[in-house]
Amino acid sequence: MNWPKEKKVLALCGGVGGAKLALGLTKILPPEQLSIAVNTADDFDHLGLRICPDLDTVTYTLAEVNNRETGWGRANESWHCMEALAELGGETWFKLGDRDIATHLFRRSQLNQGLSISQVTANLCQNLGIAHSVFPMSDNPVGTEVKTDSGWLDFQHYFVEQQCQPKINEIRFVGAEAAQPSPKFKAALEDSHLGCVIICPSNPFLSIDPVLAVCGIRKLLTEIDAPVIAVSPVIGGKAVKGPTAKIMQELALEITPNTVVSHYADFLSGFVLDRQDAEQQHRLPASIAVQVCNTLMISLQDRIELANECLLLAQRIG
Amino acid sequence: MNWPKEKKVLALCGGVGGAKLALGLTKILPPEQLSIAVNTADDFDHLGLRICPDLDTVTYTLAEVNNRETGWGRANESWHCMEALAELGGETWFKLGDRDIATHLFRRSQLNQGLSISQVTANLCQNLGIAHSVFPMSDNPVGTEVKTDSGWLDFQHYFVEQQCQPKINEIRFVGAEAAQPSPKFKAALEDSHLGCVIICPSNPFLSIDPVLAVCGIRKLLTEIDAPVIAVSPVIGGKAVKGPTAKIMQELALEITPNTVVSHYADFLSGFVLDRQDAEQQHRLPASIAVQVCNTLMISLQDRIELANECLLLAQRIG
Repeated sequence: MNWPKEKKVLALCGGVGGAKLALGLTKILPPEQLSIAVNTADDFDHLGLRICPDLDTVTYTLAEVNNRETGWGRANESWHCMEALAELGGETWFKLGDRDIATHLFRRSQLNQGLSISQVTANLCQNLGIAHSVFPMSDNPVGTEVKTDSGWLDFQHYFVEQQCQPKINEIRFVGAEAAQPSPKFKAALEDSHLGCVIICPSNPFLSIDPVLAVCGIRKLLTEIDAPVIAVSPVIGGKAVKGPTAKIMQELALEITPNTVVSHYADFLSGFVLDRQDAEQQHRLPASIAVQVCNTLMISLQDRIELANECLLLAQRIG
Repeated sequence: MNWPKEKKVLALCGGVGGAKLALGLTKILPPEQLSIAVNTADDFDHLGLRICPDLDTVTYTLAEVNNRETGWGRANESWHCMEALAELGGETWFKLGDRDIATHLFRRSQLNQGLSISQVTANLCQNLGIAHSVFPMSDNPVGTEVKTDSGWLDFQHYFVEQQCQPKINEIRFVGAEAAQPSPKFKAALEDSHLGCVIICPSNPFLSIDPVLAVCGIRKLLTEIDAPVIAVSPVIGGKAVKGPTAKIMQELALEITPNTVVSHYADFLSGFVLDRQDAEQQHRLPASIAVQVCNTLMISLQDRIELANECLLLAQRIG
């Protein structure tokens, strides 16, 4: 892969799937050529802590201290605080490992000192030894809520406490319209050296849509010269992880790559399709450049190869 | 010991030494006859948590989950959160064990919900299985500060971060004059069945003085009918633990039981003196009833026996 040295790449990213591709990209591109904007609409206050699930998944993944079994939290984790909290009758539906709690204490402490979530994230990255630029989509609060048959639910209560069981009728991102993109996100999108935007294979409805909903972002994506490409989060009619397929069904959408492409239609110029779905290619709009490859990321090599395929597609589009 | 069933006992208590005697008292007196008012002037916000060192020491001690080696924190503790926080470059001068953090998260969470520190403490006690009534001296914030040669220092920065090394010239309790006694503290002092007040062997200057400084408390102690007795925190010219002796020296006070008695002169009617200091008895004012016994609490039996001696003295005064 000979990605031009003067061209920069911006990845839009949610949690697990997105973080895997982000890791692959960091293995190919030097820090000055890659930046990663992360969904913060899942963030919430809990036990007085400020918890940013997607930022933590991305930073733990890039620092290679992430828990690969669970897809969230840190590796080599212990649970003594949660055990003691359970004994005290405290809230334990959101599992926080002892080492993970350090991140949330650090963040709360810095936010209390007046730092923005961008600044706190930059400090966390520096202290975790992450050279690439990782930043929140916005420094303003945005909160994902899902409408179920029993009313609107905060994201974490839906996602963790109720384990995605309620049927979703509608999704909203409270505060998104008023939220400004974070300074680094705006700068990355407006950078004249921007060579491509990669939408990672995160949940389009819960992880990418909030990023796009931040004031001005979706419009900016339709206006930039650089190609915007997305990696399919759907393989063979299923999502690799998480409730993407379930939500598509509940929203009466076909669980196919084409649904994802249609979802991003206003700004998308390229799409990375899994080999298993190669026969779906003819259903995609002719205007979309397609790269067919393996998109399932099991090994680190898979992550690097998929990152490579993304850049090949971006180069092909030009 | 036949302490009358209708008479109640109120203990005023700081950290380690006070907690030991409080535990002894709980082994003699049933919950309806004993209540324990605890210093909260050492409380502080740290990493977004609300930390109440003396309340925690007392509740952990009564629940028998306290760490007996350190004198603070919980037994069987792990330190994974602190290790991770150190890696993140966070503040680690105040050591928080993984299980201990659960208490601070529980407290912060309940305070954020609008509960008072009295209510949170009652909930913690209930969940830790503590039947006796433990409450803060006040629900209003009071903060101990010490004046050193380099200016005023917050208590924890003096006590923990600087390990009591700076010389103290003066001590103040910011907010104490405006602080109201907590509801249970006021009720205990005004209870017509109050049979005695016991000032536990905690640091008179750092742990008991703030309790006495809460609006109206010192005056109430001079007015009540029940005897007020104190247990000497000084044995053989030394403090059992902590900086009591060092501070007495810095404040140009003699490190003797008599200094402690003088300090409480306006309300004290009885004093428990250690056997090692028996020869000091003649120096104490004749108006003070004195009980000479072992005051060093190594074993649980020592704690119970000292509690017994306190009640014997109170009964003797009547």
